[in-house]
Amino acid sequence: MKPPVVFLLLATAMAAVADPLPSWNETPTKKAIVDFVEKVTTKGSPDYVVPAERIATFDNDGCLWSEQPMYFQAFYIFDRIKALAPEHPEWKDKEPFASVLKDDVKGALSGGEKALLEMAMATHAGLTDEEFRKVVGDWLATARHPKTGMPYDKMVFQPMLELLAYLRAEGFKTFIVSGGGIDFLRVFAEDTYGIPPEQVVGSSIGAKYELRDGKPVLVKIPDSLFIDDKEGKPVGIHQHIGRRPIFAAGNSDGDFQMLEWTTAGEGPRFGLLVHHTDAEREFAYDRDSHVGKLSRGLDEGPDRGWTIASMKRDWKTIYPATE
Amino acid sequence: MKPPVVFLLLATAMAAVADPLPSWNETPTKKAIVDFVEKVTTKGSPDYVVPAERIATFDNDGCLWSEQPMYFQAFYIFDRIKALAPEHPEWKDKEPFASVLKDDVKGALSGGEKALLEMAMATHAGLTDEEFRKVVGDWLATARHPKTGMPYDKMVFQPMLELLAYLRAEGFKTFIVSGGGIDFLRVFAEDTYGIPPEQVVGSSIGAKYELRDGKPVLVKIPDSLFIDDKEGKPVGIHQHIGRRPIFAAGNSDGDFQMLEWTTAGEGPRFGLLVHHTDAEREFAYDRDSHVGKLSRGLDEGPDRGWTIASMKRDWKTIYPATE
Repeated sequence: MKPPVVFLLLATAMAAVADPLPSWNETPTKKAIVDFVEKVTTKGSPDYVVPAERIATFDNDGCLWSEQPMYFQAFYIFDRIKALAPEHPEWKDKEPFASVLKDDVKGALSGGEKALLEMAMATHAGLTDEEFRKVVGDWLATARHPKTGMPYDKMVFQPMLELLAYLRAEGFKTFIVSGGGIDFLRVFAEDTYGIPPEQVVGSSIGAKYELRDGKPVLVKIPDSLFIDDKEGKPVGIHQHIGRRPIFAAGNSDGDFQMLEWTTAGEGPRFGLLVHHTDAEREFAYDRDSHVGKLSRGLDEGPDRGWTIASMKRDWKTIYPATE
Repeated sequence: MKPPVVFLLLATAMAAVADPLPSWNETPTKKAIVDFVEKVTTKGSPDYVVPAERIATFDNDGCLWSEQPMYFQAFYIFDRIKALAPEHPEWKDKEPFASVLKDDVKGALSGGEKALLEMAMATHAGLTDEEFRKVVGDWLATARHPKTGMPYDKMVFQPMLELLAYLRAEGFKTFIVSGGGIDFLRVFAEDTYGIPPEQVVGSSIGAKYELRDGKPVLVKIPDSLFIDDKEGKPVGIHQHIGRRPIFAAGNSDGDFQMLEWTTAGEGPRFGLLVHHTDAEREFAYDRDSHVGKLSRGLDEGPDRGWTIASMKRDWKTIYPATE
């Protein structure tokens, strides 16, 4: 090999190392992230953190993928209610199911969280874990977002995919900590985000172990409800991970306590809030949104040392390039 | 370097590779384990399993450490009841606490699982996660086993430590799936077994997130009880890990369903039961024991293709050598 080739290769390699976040603009947000990662991974640095403690948690809806005009799992639930309607003639006269069957989204959601939970239970319970995986997988393969026409699992944020990969390359273990359903998330988290099922924390219902014709199955049952949102997020982190993250990312006030818990620990900590500011390339919403409301985080985040990423300002691209 | 040195180093390295389980005797048990690991890790083998699916789960009491004359966590609970007694004058007249305070172990345990749970709740709830870690850590540092005089966390099985390390070296992710308390286990699992908190599944009570003088804490609360035993083990695996293990090890009928669930999956599977057959070096018990009862596993295990390790026959040593 002639020296120039070596230099060229070296320069390319260095450029790759130098920019682990190519879809992030060169703003203070990107610098804050990279500075944090470098200081906790540099041996001898006063802020060095051993790899075992490099736990990073990410909200999903609105943080790793879009969440407008409503949570994507709600689209799944609505589609599932329609598919199951023939087996449930009583739903025609029973809210919130009746509204769903009339394509009245507003009516279906007017019952608030309670109604959504009731629908989630009705459509998630009763399936074995294998059946549930297949039903959700089939849905993801065929369903399309009403505005973009894209598959839901392609509406993930390229800059966040890079951030996940960057943290993992630097010895972090990345977790999802979402208000969404843990088993729903697990269907696509590994392929989409590189996050294995055992690193997914989410809302959950119970499960029952039983034998069917001598074959053991796990069946989802409508009890033991756990809501992994707000104060539930540190609780979910405690139960599943068992130690405090040093890095947490979210986008709504449902993530407030996760960031509070994370950044209240000793030593270096990073709290990141994704602010949806880009009506043109994605959606723009915060204090008044019915999903992903972000108000307290905007008010208190900066004083708490949290970094607020503006999608419009900080992100070069939103979704991954399609092949 | 002269060739002989290289050969010598190579030979040493090969010997190390050739015997990943030096504390296991050269019996069919050891051969079955090694054969399994080799076939699932050999690329091109029809039984090859990708690393992400190499999930191995281990019971703790009686599988990774001893459990006689009673579960070690019960010793903790008894010691804790005595320490807390001055704050609970009512315990003097209330069973099972009264028996504990009179050092009447039999009386304390005569209420069965319900009494043990009541004592576990009373001694575990109310502490923050940090307080609980400190109390258990202090106890482990000072408490000694009544028969051996050893610290409890030194009464771990050297052959099983080697098995954990061997599996991890071969790309497995190792988990504890125990009827013991998840937070109790997490205090020592990382140092003792190399298993991080996020890979510990166990029985649990609830937790509450709250602010104390502006500082967020997680407090253990006596609700949301989950018993990670028998049918609860596949459920705990499902909730925490989200996929079926390909390797499971236990020692009692409390592990039956975990092994059943594990070995009912498609492809290569391994079920291991540790049989306590060594009264001289450890303890000998099975069908009639009040802890770690093993009966159905002995009857049905062999027909199900499970491997039964006899401590007396298969293990060269029991506990790690002390320095």
